[in-house]
Amino acid sequence: MSESQLSTDQSVGLVAPQSVVFDQSIELTSKGVLHGFELAYETYGELNSDASNAILICHALSGDHHAAGHYGDADKTRGWWDTMIGPGKPIDTNHFYVVCSNNLGGCGGSTGPSSTNPATGKPYGPDFPIVTVEDWVHTQTMLSDHLGIQQWAAVMGGSLGGMQAIQWSISHPERLRHAIVIASAAKLNAQNIGFNDVARQAIRTDPGFFNGDYYQHNSNPDRGMRVARMLGHITYLSESLMGQKFGRNLRQKATFDYEFTPEFEVESYLRYQGDSFVNRFDANTYLLMTKALDYFDPAAQTNDDLTRALAPAKTNFLVISFNSDWRFSSERSKEIVRALQSNKHNVSYADIDSPYGHDSFLLENSDYFELMRAYMTRVRGDLADENKEGR
Amino acid sequence: MSESQLSTDQSVGLVAPQSVVFDQSIELTSKGVLHGFELAYETYGELNSDASNAILICHALSGDHHAAGHYGDADKTRGWWDTMIGPGKPIDTNHFYVVCSNNLGGCGGSTGPSSTNPATGKPYGPDFPIVTVEDWVHTQTMLSDHLGIQQWAAVMGGSLGGMQAIQWSISHPERLRHAIVIASAAKLNAQNIGFNDVARQAIRTDPGFFNGDYYQHNSNPDRGMRVARMLGHITYLSESLMGQKFGRNLRQKATFDYEFTPEFEVESYLRYQGDSFVNRFDANTYLLMTKALDYFDPAAQTNDDLTRALAPAKTNFLVISFNSDWRFSSERSKEIVRALQSNKHNVSYADIDSPYGHDSFLLENSDYFELMRAYMTRVRGDLADENKEGR
Repeated sequence: MSESQLSTDQSVGLVAPQSVVFDQSIELTSKGVLHGFELAYETYGELNSDASNAILICHALSGDHHAAGHYGDADKTRGWWDTMIGPGKPIDTNHFYVVCSNNLGGCGGSTGPSSTNPATGKPYGPDFPIVTVEDWVHTQTMLSDHLGIQQWAAVMGGSLGGMQAIQWSISHPERLRHAIVIASAAKLNAQNIGFNDVARQAIRTDPGFFNGDYYQHNSNPDRGMRVARMLGHITYLSESLMGQKFGRNLRQKATFDYEFTPEFEVESYLRYQGDSFVNRFDANTYLLMTKALDYFDPAAQTNDDLTRALAPAKTNFLVISFNSDWRFSSERSKEIVRALQSNKHNVSYADIDSPYGHDSFLLENSDYFELMRAYMTRVRGDLADENKEGR
Repeated sequence: MSESQLSTDQSVGLVAPQSVVFDQSIELTSKGVLHGFELAYETYGELNSDASNAILICHALSGDHHAAGHYGDADKTRGWWDTMIGPGKPIDTNHFYVVCSNNLGGCGGSTGPSSTNPATGKPYGPDFPIVTVEDWVHTQTMLSDHLGIQQWAAVMGGSLGGMQAIQWSISHPERLRHAIVIASAAKLNAQNIGFNDVARQAIRTDPGFFNGDYYQHNSNPDRGMRVARMLGHITYLSESLMGQKFGRNLRQKATFDYEFTPEFEVESYLRYQGDSFVNRFDANTYLLMTKALDYFDPAAQTNDDLTRALAPAKTNFLVISFNSDWRFSSERSKEIVRALQSNKHNVSYADIDSPYGHDSFLLENSDYFELMRAYMTRVRGDLADENKEGR
């Protein structure tokens, strides 16, 4: 089937999560040890005979391994990057074998704080160790080995996912040919860390948190989670988009009630987003993910010199930022690009015009999607060269 | 004593709060009624014989009537604008009689949610009505009458205080000669409202809040207040200042602990700010102040036309913004300036170069202070003309 016959709204369709259990103990960056763990993942498309067409998708803060397709009800269970991944889509599953795993510490099926600790028979809760981007990359290499993938055609992700792509390029330069780093940063700044700590304090001071042992108390720090997510949403959107989308519109009424019930649409929206999140995400995992964001700083090993930190990389880079993203601003992507250029690494960079702030990396946008399509065509070209076969 | 003899670090010295009780009932914008109320205030300098040298200072979200001087221990109890107000300072108490009142609904001595409701003998708590900027201006006119001030030489304030100065110019154009609007806006945008609602939800969902009746339960929503204030602080500072001040500096240690205790200095700073605030501010007042911010929108009465909203004003305006303030950005001040210019009102405007974000309006800055000094000298000039006497 040629690409021209494919509609871009085709999906990989019905998918099912898979998982792999690793029996060996691993020591994490935090010196915490896990005696075996499980990783949940999904795959889309077919691995080719020399295992050269595999793409690793790394998820962000509240994402998981369900990146594309659906679980039987496409309206409700569509993957978080279904617009990007599929037959005829920018990451074309007619050509690529796409893998997305739930990060260690997650709540989507991989071993995390809500999993049973084999040492106690109870959920890990606060005993689950701090995990870092380096740990995720390490465990993703174990998944790569399990899947028989020696070298990824590309490793990519947005935000925290982009940090994983950067870390792959530093820690395992031979194991990927392309790194795609979207709406990300080489390290969080003080403002980012501050927002993360507000979210953490909202959760950790919730009386329902029980120091992370809430599973044992038939409890949930849902008030704190709700506040954390409301705050997150404001920072994922741009000021101008919030202005366009909500402005000062009132909520289904003509005048103020002068009450603490929501007066403005934006209040209802944020509260709804907060409430929805509480029902689908584990608080301890949210805490761990924000900590992994804070800790990521590869240049900390090289006296704050990002160029030196990125020197080991051998991959080609595509770096993408969005001009309305103030949580991971374009300037943060340019820092990465400059450090890559100083190393004479092969790097393409685009600052995409989008009003949607940090959320842009998850949303359909013609400039962004055409860029991704063009770049992935190039990745396929490399593949064809290496395979010595046409497609 | 001439100005040249005065050191700019002179203070108005020891001061004492005063208060006035109004027995009459007032109906508020929210249709809520208060059967009498008290306003706490302070004054600095001397009212001249024709009561023409009076300056009204309007406070912001977490401010109060204690704007200058101290209560006996200058290190601990200095007023929030002591750098600006005093003998030889930009608002020179050798020439002006300066008044600052605690807004209705406050927790600094004016009647507010923590005051005793005469109808029940218990604190008002959630029964205290919503108050608006218009209500504050109305009650400030009552204070003006009490003090024998028919016309203020100037009404001024930063942030929420600037909104009160704007409202004075619209509601009582004959009662002020100058309005000084600093780091303010003609209305909040969706992002501002969103941040306010996150703060409110943090407080209102705290189990210690008891729907606002926490006084009766020997309780306090301190966890929610702490989170609200931490968030507030991030938005009062600029990203670049947080970067300069804290960066990714660790807290008195060389390496990460990989724990949920603070790793970075910025976390310690924000938590400290949050904890301090809990001890000095009433949660119900904080809620009311954020609502007053949300509701303020004089152009809502004129079909969203700010020019028409400001048409009644007869005062001279000084509008000041700070170029690193992203919570009340320079653009929001320029909207006010454009609307004033469209009305051919007399307006001066300056966008001050300052790295300190929204907090800049509270901080000493030579450009800002020299501008205020120069403008206040002009206000004194008007005074001399009107008084037909030299000074």
